[in-house]
Amino acid sequence: MADKITARNEDYSQWYIDLVRSAKLADYSDVRGCMVIRPNGYAIWEKMQAALDRMFKETGHVNAYFPLFIPESFIAKEAEHIEGFAPECAVVTHGGGEELAEKLYVRPTSETIIWSSYKKWIQSYRDLPILINQWANVVRWEMRTRLFLRTTEFLWQEGHTAHATPEESQEEVMRMINVYRTFAEEYMAMPVIMGRKTDSEKFAGAEETYCIEAMMQDGKALQAGTSHNLGQNFAKAFDCQFQTKDSRLDYVWATSWGVSTRLIGALIMAHSDDRGLVLPPKLASRQVVIIPILRGDKAAVLEQADAMAASLKAAGIPAFVDGSEQNSPGWKFAEYELQGIPVRIEVGPRDIEKGICIAARRDTLEKSELQLGETLPGAVQEILDAMQKDMYQKALLFREENTVEASSYEEFKAAVEKGFVIAHWDGTAETEEKIKEETKATIRVLPEEDGYIERYRMNEPGTCIYSGKPAAQKVVFAKAY
Amino acid sequence: MADKITARNEDYSQWYIDLVRSAKLADYSDVRGCMVIRPNGYAIWEKMQAALDRMFKETGHVNAYFPLFIPESFIAKEAEHIEGFAPECAVVTHGGGEELAEKLYVRPTSETIIWSSYKKWIQSYRDLPILINQWANVVRWEMRTRLFLRTTEFLWQEGHTAHATPEESQEEVMRMINVYRTFAEEYMAMPVIMGRKTDSEKFAGAEETYCIEAMMQDGKALQAGTSHNLGQNFAKAFDCQFQTKDSRLDYVWATSWGVSTRLIGALIMAHSDDRGLVLPPKLASRQVVIIPILRGDKAAVLEQADAMAASLKAAGIPAFVDGSEQNSPGWKFAEYELQGIPVRIEVGPRDIEKGICIAARRDTLEKSELQLGETLPGAVQEILDAMQKDMYQKALLFREENTVEASSYEEFKAAVEKGFVIAHWDGTAETEEKIKEETKATIRVLPEEDGYIERYRMNEPGTCIYSGKPAAQKVVFAKAY
Repeated sequence: MADKITARNEDYSQWYIDLVRSAKLADYSDVRGCMVIRPNGYAIWEKMQAALDRMFKETGHVNAYFPLFIPESFIAKEAEHIEGFAPECAVVTHGGGEELAEKLYVRPTSETIIWSSYKKWIQSYRDLPILINQWANVVRWEMRTRLFLRTTEFLWQEGHTAHATPEESQEEVMRMINVYRTFAEEYMAMPVIMGRKTDSEKFAGAEETYCIEAMMQDGKALQAGTSHNLGQNFAKAFDCQFQTKDSRLDYVWATSWGVSTRLIGALIMAHSDDRGLVLPPKLASRQVVIIPILRGDKAAVLEQADAMAASLKAAGIPAFVDGSEQNSPGWKFAEYELQGIPVRIEVGPRDIEKGICIAARRDTLEKSELQLGETLPGAVQEILDAMQKDMYQKALLFREENTVEASSYEEFKAAVEKGFVIAHWDGTAETEEKIKEETKATIRVLPEEDGYIERYRMNEPGTCIYSGKPAAQKVVFAKAY
Repeated sequence: MADKITARNEDYSQWYIDLVRSAKLADYSDVRGCMVIRPNGYAIWEKMQAALDRMFKETGHVNAYFPLFIPESFIAKEAEHIEGFAPECAVVTHGGGEELAEKLYVRPTSETIIWSSYKKWIQSYRDLPILINQWANVVRWEMRTRLFLRTTEFLWQEGHTAHATPEESQEEVMRMINVYRTFAEEYMAMPVIMGRKTDSEKFAGAEETYCIEAMMQDGKALQAGTSHNLGQNFAKAFDCQFQTKDSRLDYVWATSWGVSTRLIGALIMAHSDDRGLVLPPKLASRQVVIIPILRGDKAAVLEQADAMAASLKAAGIPAFVDGSEQNSPGWKFAEYELQGIPVRIEVGPRDIEKGICIAARRDTLEKSELQLGETLPGAVQEILDAMQKDMYQKALLFREENTVEASSYEEFKAAVEKGFVIAHWDGTAETEEKIKEETKATIRVLPEEDGYIERYRMNEPGTCIYSGKPAAQKVVFAKAY
């Protein structure tokens, strides 16, 4: 059985680490700052990859692979980019037993190495757009790490697109941040606020960064995905020009966008509880565990359990039986709650006599009696669908309950310890920086969603919470992971 | 249109490079020895991954992910391993702006980093077996590179399993080399010889290495996959002991097995021709291109083409229409032959009147008339199935025609310039080394397949081709990629 998990209200950080390790999702490795993603954790990543990859392909993208190593001179080509990334890179100085003439950076992100290829591939508007995605590992040296959320190496996808016009690239930026939003809401059952970052929070080398921000159960924000409008910055850095339709020469317009294994951390922090992982069914590789209560005619009970699993699998519901006698049903209940299997079904000799089984859903722990037989898969699917929907609603309600509109800095400081705070901001980097210094809260997002904007009247002018100067709009503040 | 491809009989090496670049499968990058896998090439890798991943899961394996970096001291723990790999590693000496206390090797393979985790996970026989696979990038410094076949960075999968008994680990070794064999034959349409490596050719740290060897169109061999019995070597290096069922302490038994993006090179060299790529249908992400002949009522022809594509897709055959007017049908024929789309369908106004279309299969360039309407998908599927089968048969016939049994060293030297040579070997590393020095040919495999052994009477004793000493068996020699 699992080690004890610290309760959330006792120590939220410790709860998270305990859960990740007890549920065997990930573990620290012997390499400083690097994690091992264990099979239970990697299975979640595979489900995420499959859904995202399908969405990328449906929006016209193809996959490719670019080198892990980036020559130092490439990183240096884009001024803001090197300033942002060089200090956190791992550097290869030797290869094949010899010192290298030029140092190689292990990619922290691939804009530069990719644009050095795009330069060769793009001559004319006919070569555009290029809509490429890459699934890869990246390395950013981290001093303080946390499994999934902040590690020196992590897995991600990075889209890199090239366009003939700024309108097309902006359209792509919005298309992809909306793909991420859909994924977060429909697969992760995690409500997000979509919008822009302030200049100080945007990607090193971007004109504009769009993001989706989610609230964790401790009220902190987590940036769950970003989509960058890179303007012509990288095309200029790599001298990548093309012949336009009307025979002019212009620099190519670029975007990049990515999500990472960080999403697994977000998923855990958004939904899980003191018993362990709570997984939205759409991201569970195993949706149903059947636990036979082995009394009386054990063989008959096992046979019934196997038949139920077969009928569920035939209906497309990944189910499995744990019929081991080594562990008690109670042990199994706890173990599969820890692992976050969405639905547990118990079936014993008396249930079989009555023609029923007991299903328990992981999020609410609610039990219901289901009829055995051909209606079973449909009934289980209904529970799974309800769970997927309810988890989203619960998280949305939680976010709304923990979002406060502050009209004074005192109010702001108290509220930002507990959740999101919506407040007027004068639009200056100075104010943003001061607030960050004093409260550790940052501007998470300038929302771009109509519903959110209306609900919190984000565009209503007012007075800056900090400086008292006029403010054109409200923004969302929070402490963040 | 594509650049001209050098003919195979003119310059086989140049043909390969021309093809890879013209078909936009891969390209050299600006990083020495590293390649860019372009979307056309990566699509093949995705098909390979999907098939292999399914086969791994069907044989009980799960995926996980371990760190890219390996501390120098870990690599050093297994003596043969460090000797084999250290000289070809890329070494990270700086991270986060500071010099590291211990150098980190970019993984050339992951036995050491994985066994440092397994040591923590395994206490008892109840924790065994561990059946983990990892999809990852690895780096081995190469001086002379060739796209897909030999590059400093490449993509692969590496299985790493841990077992309680040597019988179980040997069973796993054979299970996985047979998975590779099935994959090579059924998906890649590439016949392979399965068997053991000699001691000098085995993996650094293995007790025994099994491999599958394929013949390329120039008669050279290509090692397409390996499965290693690691004995207790890595468990001993990492002091990984477990409590056996009968309460003794023993070291864990290990295997590892892998295939890489090298397989894409093998696929090209095994089947392609002077017009470009020839892809077995099972590895083609796009199986059918429909080219409307845009004369007369163009809209009607396009509509017909779209309807055909829709009916093929509905039947599970990935088809697409190229209805662009910018390029001529002739240009399109050449372009899709270059890209290796298995079946091309032409349809024009006169065909539509007659209720037919013309299908051309890529491997034989053979054309056939197909009826339009509901029988079309079935007829196309038949062509695809025949092509998959015929490509295998053709490659098998080629291998048989280019396999020679040599009974003198003179005969051997002449034959090994053209293909595989089966000859008696005295079993010594000295003879093996001498032959390699003098002819560049190596012992590719000691076959373990009954059919192959019988056909070439591999187990018949005789006289060593080189030393004249008694030889217990014959082996397969070839020059290799």
